[in-house]
Amino acid sequence: MKAIVHVGLKPGVLDPQGKAIADTLGRMGFAEVQGARIGKVIELDMDDVPAEQAEARVRDMCEKLLANTVIETYRFELIGDAQ
Amino acid sequence: MKAIVHVGLKPGVLDPQGKAIADTLGRMGFAEVQGARIGKVIELDMDDVPAEQAEARVRDMCEKLLANTVIETYRFELIGDAQ
Repeated sequence: MKAIVHVGLKPGVLDPQGKAIADTLGRMGFAEVQGARIGKVIELDMDDVPAEQAEARVRDMCEKLLANTVIETYRFELIGDAQ
Repeated sequence: MKAIVHVGLKPGVLDPQGKAIADTLGRMGFAEVQGARIGKVIELDMDDVPAEQAEARVRDMCEKLLANTVIETYRFELIGDAQ
């Protein structure tokens, strides 16, 4: 099974990398771009475990390693899980 | 309107950051994790332009700045575009 974890900065947290991209696109002539925010997607290949158990495990991974919950939010989906 | 751009490494391209995450999760007791791949999501706030034009513009941004097409693939979706 796979777990697709999306990690992004909380609203209001400064995103210098996103600002750099938006500014650079503007300088390149893409004047329609008003702003940009960057997030991460982490795709985990996992052994098949029951969906309920997998959900608890992936949440635990997010809280402990994958996201910095002070400044980031996360959400995830499970694909191909054994029911 | 918004453009959501997904950028990821091509299959076969080494992903050291993903390997570090998978190895660390394994050491933390998450033995069910077999591997991890990392991608980026870039959310662009854009002025409203016709969908067809926006698609060409965003593709251009991906080719020129947002993705390194030698080692990365990209896909994007447009949200709230004026038809």
